[in-house]
Amino acid sequence: VLEHIVDAVLYLEGERFHSFRILRATKNRFGSTDEVGVFEMGETGLREVADPSGVFLEERGKGVSGSVVVPTLEGTRPLLVEVQALVTPTSFGLPRRTASGADLQRVLLLLAVLGKRAGLSLGQHDVYVNLVGGLRVREPAADLALAVALASALRDKPADPRAVFVGELGLGGEVRRVQRLAARLREAERLGFERAIVPQASVRDVNGTALEVIGVADLREAVMRSGMGERSA
Amino acid sequence: VLEHIVDAVLYLEGERFHSFRILRATKNRFGSTDEVGVFEMGETGLREVADPSGVFLEERGKGVSGSVVVPTLEGTRPLLVEVQALVTPTSFGLPRRTASGADLQRVLLLLAVLGKRAGLSLGQHDVYVNLVGGLRVREPAADLALAVALASALRDKPADPRAVFVGELGLGGEVRRVQRLAARLREAERLGFERAIVPQASVRDVNGTALEVIGVADLREAVMRSGMGERSA
Amino acid sequence: VLEHIVDAVLYLEGERFHSFRILRATKNRFGSTDEVGVFEMGETGLREVADPSGVFLEERGKGVSGSVVVPTLEGTRPLLVEVQALVTPTSFGLPRRTASGADLQRVLLLLAVLGKRAGLSLGQHDVYVNLVGGLRVREPAADLALAVALASALRDKPADPRAVFVGELGLGGEVRRVQRLAARLREAERLGFERAIVPQASVRDVNGTALEVIGVADLREAVMRSGMGERSA
Amino acid sequence: VLEHIVDAVLYLEGERFHSFRILRATKNRFGSTDEVGVFEMGETGLREVADPSGVFLEERGKGVSGSVVVPTLEGTRPLLVEVQALVTPTSFGLPRRTASGADLQRVLLLLAVLGKRAGLSLGQHDVYVNLVGGLRVREPAADLALAVALASALRDKPADPRAVFVGELGLGGEVRRVQRLAARLREAERLGFERAIVPQASVRDVNGTALEVIGVADLREAVMRSGMGERSA
Amino acid sequence: VLEHIVDAVLYLEGERFHSFRILRATKNRFGSTDEVGVFEMGETGLREVADPSGVFLEERGKGVSGSVVVPTLEGTRPLLVEVQALVTPTSFGLPRRTASGADLQRVLLLLAVLGKRAGLSLGQHDVYVNLVGGLRVREPAADLALAVALASALRDKPADPRAVFVGELGLGGEVRRVQRLAARLREAERLGFERAIVPQASVRDVNGTALEVIGVADLREAVMRSGMGERSA
Amino acid sequence: VLEHIVDAVLYLEGERFHSFRILRATKNRFGSTDEVGVFEMGETGLREVADPSGVFLEERGKGVSGSVVVPTLEGTRPLLVEVQALVTPTSFGLPRRTASGADLQRVLLLLAVLGKRAGLSLGQHDVYVNLVGGLRVREPAADLALAVALASALRDKPADPRAVFVGELGLGGEVRRVQRLAARLREAERLGFERAIVPQASVRDVNGTALEVIGVADLREAVMRSGMGERSA
Repeated sequence: VLEHIVDAVLYLEGERFHSFRILRATKNRFGSTDEVGVFEMGETGLREVADPSGVFLEERGKGVSGSVVVPTLEGTRPLLVEVQALVTPTSFGLPRRTASGADLQRVLLLLAVLGKRAGLSLGQHDVYVNLVGGLRVREPAADLALAVALASALRDKPADPRAVFVGELGLGGEVRRVQRLAARLREAERLGFERAIVPQASVRDVNGTALEVIGVADLREAVMRSGMGERSA
Repeated sequence: VLEHIVDAVLYLEGERFHSFRILRATKNRFGSTDEVGVFEMGETGLREVADPSGVFLEERGKGVSGSVVVPTLEGTRPLLVEVQALVTPTSFGLPRRTASGADLQRVLLLLAVLGKRAGLSLGQHDVYVNLVGGLRVREPAADLALAVALASALRDKPADPRAVFVGELGLGGEVRRVQRLAARLREAERLGFERAIVPQASVRDVNGTALEVIGVADLREAVMRSGMGERSA
Repeated sequence: VLEHIVDAVLYLEGERFHSFRILRATKNRFGSTDEVGVFEMGETGLREVADPSGVFLEERGKGVSGSVVVPTLEGTRPLLVEVQALVTPTSFGLPRRTASGADLQRVLLLLAVLGKRAGLSLGQHDVYVNLVGGLRVREPAADLALAVALASALRDKPADPRAVFVGELGLGGEVRRVQRLAARLREAERLGFERAIVPQASVRDVNGTALEVIGVADLREAVMRSGMGERSA
Repeated sequence: VLEHIVDAVLYLEGERFHSFRILRATKNRFGSTDEVGVFEMGETGLREVADPSGVFLEERGKGVSGSVVVPTLEGTRPLLVEVQALVTPTSFGLPRRTASGADLQRVLLLLAVLGKRAGLSLGQHDVYVNLVGGLRVREPAADLALAVALASALRDKPADPRAVFVGELGLGGEVRRVQRLAARLREAERLGFERAIVPQASVRDVNGTALEVIGVADLREAVMRSGMGERSA
Repeated sequence: VLEHIVDAVLYLEGERFHSFRILRATKNRFGSTDEVGVFEMGETGLREVADPSGVFLEERGKGVSGSVVVPTLEGTRPLLVEVQALVTPTSFGLPRRTASGADLQRVLLLLAVLGKRAGLSLGQHDVYVNLVGGLRVREPAADLALAVALASALRDKPADPRAVFVGELGLGGEVRRVQRLAARLREAERLGFERAIVPQASVRDVNGTALEVIGVADLREAVMRSGMGERSA
Repeated sequence: VLEHIVDAVLYLEGERFHSFRILRATKNRFGSTDEVGVFEMGETGLREVADPSGVFLEERGKGVSGSVVVPTLEGTRPLLVEVQALVTPTSFGLPRRTASGADLQRVLLLLAVLGKRAGLSLGQHDVYVNLVGGLRVREPAADLALAVALASALRDKPADPRAVFVGELGLGGEVRRVQRLAARLREAERLGFERAIVPQASVRDVNGTALEVIGVADLREAVMRSGMGERSA
């Protein structure tokens, strides 16, 4: 009888004035779940966007440092998102950290891991993190992309524009597995990406993709392979 | 069956004592959506305002620096809003940032982009941002207007009073496309504006408007074209 | 069918232990709206107050600096409110700003406008703002009164006790129109005021009042006409 | 029909583990309103407290500075409350202000008024305010009592233990009228107080009381009459 | 008719992952009230804990400074709780104050009273307060126990392990009466305590207990009797 | 009749985009209670995860300092969680403390206990705490694991990878008993752990486990036995 009590919750997510809305349905009964749709607000009402990743990535600045694409999950649906970082030398004693669309506490952890485990210290820099299009991402699977974007901004070297990055980071610097990696990579492939940097332990789970799949065991390795390693710039 | 559960949410938006109310209806069924009306509180009740942009812009200070008009979207309805910025030299160590009607975190990001990508540093200035009429704007499409207002206030040069500005800004300084640009520009044209500064990638989408449409690829170009560029004042 | 869903919201406003309650009714159907009543809590229940402005103003300190009266709107009903400011030299590095009944962010903006546009800097003073009777005012129409009260407190010169002040302030220092000015002035006249300082652009809208109506285009003019101008004290 | 929508709200007020609960009923229909009862939690349930002021005052420290009694209103029911202040020289740069049961913003305003209007500066002192018994008071009518308690603590001179204090304070230092003064004073008389310091403008409203009623026009006068005046200690 | 509207509120209190839950029922009708039960989450569901104080106290560190037991009330049911304090010399300019389970504002007040009224200054120490078992106590009756725990930690002298402490503290340092003292002491006696330090004014109310009951009039006396007095260590 | 009022509350716990959801049912009737399930969001809906601890621990970094496993309780179900700590020398005056998934106030208390009771001072270090997988733990039973992880990070010595740690910490440094220790240890044994560090007082309660059970009376003993003792590194 418990399953009759909470039936379904529907909500439209997104900044109030933002043009994309994500319709999320949480349903606890009969196994159906968390279907997600991305809608665009048109003249005659909400209209489903057939290819949301394409829209989000269309204008991605190529050749600009600090920009990395991560395949996130919106419910069971993969969604490619561009994360951006900007760093500037600190002009006051305490460096500033500002995040729009990402969790600031999480960014602070990632900065500590970058310093301790990958030798990239941002203690003398102001740090800004942005998610394009007013989106919000909270899953730890975006850790790796955020960290690489920060490294790219610090080194002022663009990340590989044909690659996506995905993985949770632990405080030891290890890159940890994420859920439903195959679905994430299918979406990246569909949108024309050619390469995926993923947790080393997940490489064996991935097959049947045209992407070049590169496993990394820890953040230092990810940074090195991206050409932003310590003293290598 | 899901669509029967959440039917519609109606709310009146606006500061409690403010004279304009925006009635927003969110309806998830049958495709109709987000109709928005602007109402004025009159003696006999709420009265729809036929030309809200006209009202908001009526008293815009001409020849004053720091004022820029942006065509925002309220649901499917375009609404012209004046954003204002004021900068003063900082008298204490930490510069003050105050925002009324705009998101302070977003303003901090825009200040960083102005400094890093357009060479306009406000690190030694207190910064104040205001939206006229007690309105609130949250969509990233207002980024460009906010950034140009800040540049105008810093240079103490008025922005072009016949122009509107619209575009999302990325941390790389790139000006990104916004939703429903045509509808926004129609409203600007209807109210007598003569020029629109829009994302470069959107120029091809706009036709059938009497406005002069100027595409800008990044913030530096927008600032230059507005005559507020680095060391040019 | 939408109008059946949200029918009416009634609430009693005011500090919990305060003797006045404002009953606000928001009704979305049939055009009737936002009727407001002011009630006093008596021995036998809530009793409507026939002349609320009179009660609020009864004890206004005459000849004291920092006190200004503003005709606000409570729904469609005008309500005269006394705003007060107190300034003292700062004893610590960072000047203190405290507001009771007004929005602190708004006060910070007004202080910046006073300094930049009217030459009245309070950067070396602690600033306190109070609304008498535990009331709260959020509409921008109170901007001018708050700014003049701050100027009066800084100059230690009382404002004209027979005058009311009303107008929104922009960051350029311009005094902007407010809604339903005529109704506001009728209430001021009814309570014995003799003069009204209003936005210049609104002077043409006002007629049939016994009040002397003085239009001001910007804050500097308002401050000058109130005898609190720069270096004139 | 509106009056059928919100019928009544009942709630038990008070700290969760506190022994007194105040039952408040707000009823919008038929004129009956805001009846309040004070209940004590006993072994067999909530038991009405017949003489709540007596309980609260029973243990009031006599001869201790910083303690003042104020007749507050709980709905239509008067309730005597002891407010306490403690001041100590500041050991760090920024003086500390802590309030338990009173609004901290209000305390900050009162400190500014004490300094500017009564010559009693607490800028070099840490300030602590407490309401005995875990009660909370928010009505401005407690301003005068709080200010006198602060003055008493600063001068280290006890306030008159047989007196109650009541009045709102403006930023000009003026003592303003409060609602239902007669009922407040009846309660003070019933509990054995002999004197009441009230707003000057209210003296004419009070009759038929055995209390000695002393009107004060402003805070300076109140402080002087309490023997805590400037340079008199 | 009012009593039919709010009938009963049931909630389970306690940290989400904590093993004890306190079931509280607030019932406004027919006089029954605030029955409280302490439940332990077992394999087959919530199981009432017959002797909650015994469980909480079982592992109390004997001979450790900073630990004091207070008989609190959970509704009508007494519950013995161990409060703990830890003080360390401050290494930075501003001493740190951290509270887990107690109200931090209240701890700040108690620190001020300890300094001013009992001569025990903690202005150069970091202060940590903890309630064992993840419990929360908000009633002022725990003031005395908290203050003695702080004194014990400062002096590094254990408090009497066979004694319980109970009483509200005023800013004058006076120890004030609390509700239902007899029931609190019965619980302490049942669990093997031998002594109770209580408000002086309450001694006459207590009889029929095997506990040694010691009345204290103010905090200085309580601290002296506990062997933690000024300059005596 | 009370038990009919609140029947059941069901909610899905976890970060919005995180792949694991914990379904918690609180039921007050008939004794059944707090059943918890861990679900993974798969292509066809929520799917129960048969062995959640195994999933969480799969990628635990071996040989990395600052990582400790604690058997927590999710309702009646044990769940093994990896807690991580990272410490770096402080570069600014005030050391930074950041926690993701743990309560920051609790971490501050544990740092104070580590310094005072185990001689491990982190006053000159920035401290970061993380719970792997986006989980949150609030029960005091995780205190010991958090403290040992902090010690391990400070000493840069890995904790025993085959051991789990469980126990509440008091401010005296004592390790206190936790609920349902046997069930916690069964889960650890099932997942291949070989050793458990538990409160000394609980050793007698544990039998029928293949784990080596080590009782510790206080934090200093736990730190010593883990090889991270004062001056021993």
